[in-house]
Amino acid sequence: MNNDRAHIFNAGPAVLPFEALQKASKAVLNYNGLGLSLIEMSHRSKEFEAVHLEAISNLKEIYNIPADYEIIFLQGGASLQFAMIPMNFLKQGETAHYVDTGTWSTKAYKEAKNFGEVKVIATSEDKKYTYIPKNIPDEKCSYLHITSNNTIRGTQYFNFPKIKNSPLICDMSSDILSRQVNISDFDMIYAGAQKNAGPSGVTIVIIKKTFLESSACKSAYLNYKTHSKENSLYNTPCTFATYVMGEVFKWIKSIGGLDEVEKRNREKAKLLYDCIENSNGFYRAPVEKNDRSWMNVPYKLPTEELEAKFLKEASLKRFFGLKGHRSIGGVRASLYNACPLESVQALVSFMKEFKKNN
Amino acid sequence: MNNDRAHIFNAGPAVLPFEALQKASKAVLNYNGLGLSLIEMSHRSKEFEAVHLEAISNLKEIYNIPADYEIIFLQGGASLQFAMIPMNFLKQGETAHYVDTGTWSTKAYKEAKNFGEVKVIATSEDKKYTYIPKNIPDEKCSYLHITSNNTIRGTQYFNFPKIKNSPLICDMSSDILSRQVNISDFDMIYAGAQKNAGPSGVTIVIIKKTFLESSACKSAYLNYKTHSKENSLYNTPCTFATYVMGEVFKWIKSIGGLDEVEKRNREKAKLLYDCIENSNGFYRAPVEKNDRSWMNVPYKLPTEELEAKFLKEASLKRFFGLKGHRSIGGVRASLYNACPLESVQALVSFMKEFKKNN
Repeated sequence: MNNDRAHIFNAGPAVLPFEALQKASKAVLNYNGLGLSLIEMSHRSKEFEAVHLEAISNLKEIYNIPADYEIIFLQGGASLQFAMIPMNFLKQGETAHYVDTGTWSTKAYKEAKNFGEVKVIATSEDKKYTYIPKNIPDEKCSYLHITSNNTIRGTQYFNFPKIKNSPLICDMSSDILSRQVNISDFDMIYAGAQKNAGPSGVTIVIIKKTFLESSACKSAYLNYKTHSKENSLYNTPCTFATYVMGEVFKWIKSIGGLDEVEKRNREKAKLLYDCIENSNGFYRAPVEKNDRSWMNVPYKLPTEELEAKFLKEASLKRFFGLKGHRSIGGVRASLYNACPLESVQALVSFMKEFKKNN
Repeated sequence: MNNDRAHIFNAGPAVLPFEALQKASKAVLNYNGLGLSLIEMSHRSKEFEAVHLEAISNLKEIYNIPADYEIIFLQGGASLQFAMIPMNFLKQGETAHYVDTGTWSTKAYKEAKNFGEVKVIATSEDKKYTYIPKNIPDEKCSYLHITSNNTIRGTQYFNFPKIKNSPLICDMSSDILSRQVNISDFDMIYAGAQKNAGPSGVTIVIIKKTFLESSACKSAYLNYKTHSKENSLYNTPCTFATYVMGEVFKWIKSIGGLDEVEKRNREKAKLLYDCIENSNGFYRAPVEKNDRSWMNVPYKLPTEELEAKFLKEASLKRFFGLKGHRSIGGVRASLYNACPLESVQALVSFMKEFKKNN
């Protein structure tokens, strides 16, 4: 680990592999010694096209994406997807089903309601979103939408619903590429890149070709088929974000792919949750044990005063991003792929020290 | 001028001030010595908020934007604006008027047609878009849409239509910040940043508050009011693009603002057009003299073979981006703000040399 680096627990935009940052820093000044910056190059130049195609091909390889799926890179983050999904797939006379696991999934179904009939088919609102609803009904509908990891609440699906009667769409913004996933279980996966996959500015869409073909939005830009036909170069993409994301994909391959990523994420999460569990209630994680996210770990201290003191001392030790989301308070550590084990070890040491002193 | 730098005539993404690239390169590795990258920082951190607010405030200052206008930063480029504009402002039972000056304006009205009644009220299609239509009718309609500079055809408005009976919307993607403009003449100006204002990944919208308030799109994300209310942080923006754009704004201020920018652009364009005019027809600019763009200069050589030879020799001399758009061929030099006079001088020398030898 580079000693100049702080401990970065930001929820997103978030920590990235230092190797990718080094490459990006050089590319911004002078790309491959060509005498111009990566961000001054045409998105239709052979140089950028190589970056773009390599990113797509590496993502396919990392996730072992079947041939009947397409990859599309878009802009606008998950929030634009919240609109594009119903605009393309919510059919008149039908209903779209949403599982409400808090904040982002709530935003997703509220945006969908602007376009047609929406039903919240399962929710964990009754217990302040501290668990993932089980036994989600498999009813016929335009699509069923779930959020695989809930950045703010700190819950994560470890068993995806087995859905046969409708297309399954999953917002994986905060845990994409964090573990092995069977892509064939989904008709569409999407993710804003700015947690595990890259900087903000690009959205990944992995979509089954037959489902893609059913895109019915009347707008050119807002229809998935437009972007698929033009291989995600219908209009100028954020070339920088694509480049850095491509470097993140290379880093994932270089460390051993998703098996290694998953192993590391499991280890980091266990270290932090064990520290919380072994604190005799000084630190408390509100989420039910089996649904605890590997990516985002929210926890509380005995009082708000102690939380404020904890956050203040942490920031002096260059721990970034530990403040819980403004909607629920407390502490939250985000342990995305590129967060090194050393940072989690440093956090755990600090937590033990803080408990001893308070 | 930095000697390592190539001569960059790309049409977009395009040349940027080297100072901005140097700052960005450092910020990507370690932002202000904090031990984390600019692109690893939360968009809600005080550090990024400062970047974001400074960019908005500098843009207001540079353009002398009146208090009854708002600035919004969005994603999705001009292409998403082509959809958002009719979704918000094209009223049922009314018509939107478009001036068709080729390619991008054509795309804009075709996208609008997906949402309602659209009328092409003036066009230069009769002469292959080699001029800007004059005497544009001032009729009552939802809005009149024009494209101030036409990147592919090389035409530019030097007198904007005086419109009193409807809101005037202008796509300034390829000449924003290239000269003084009276903002009050428009109800909305928008621009993908990737020509004069920054890298790709951010779109500038300058919009009159009363017009903004009439945004009527039912979607949250696709309604301008949503982004205005949240000061362009409704969802995660492309933080890198905002940062670099902010550095470009600082550079504009540092060289003397838009008066100086305009002076330089005028000088560069004159140099190149004079070279074309004085070539005894060896180089031919198809655009009518009074409508010739300062930003994009398309021209032809006597034969396609000579054009191919010209482009090949130019690329060996590290002139980037001179190939004309695939839809019209020939040569095109884009002389955006950050293109140094030295690059245009080098191009003109090369053109004279090439003419002598061929």
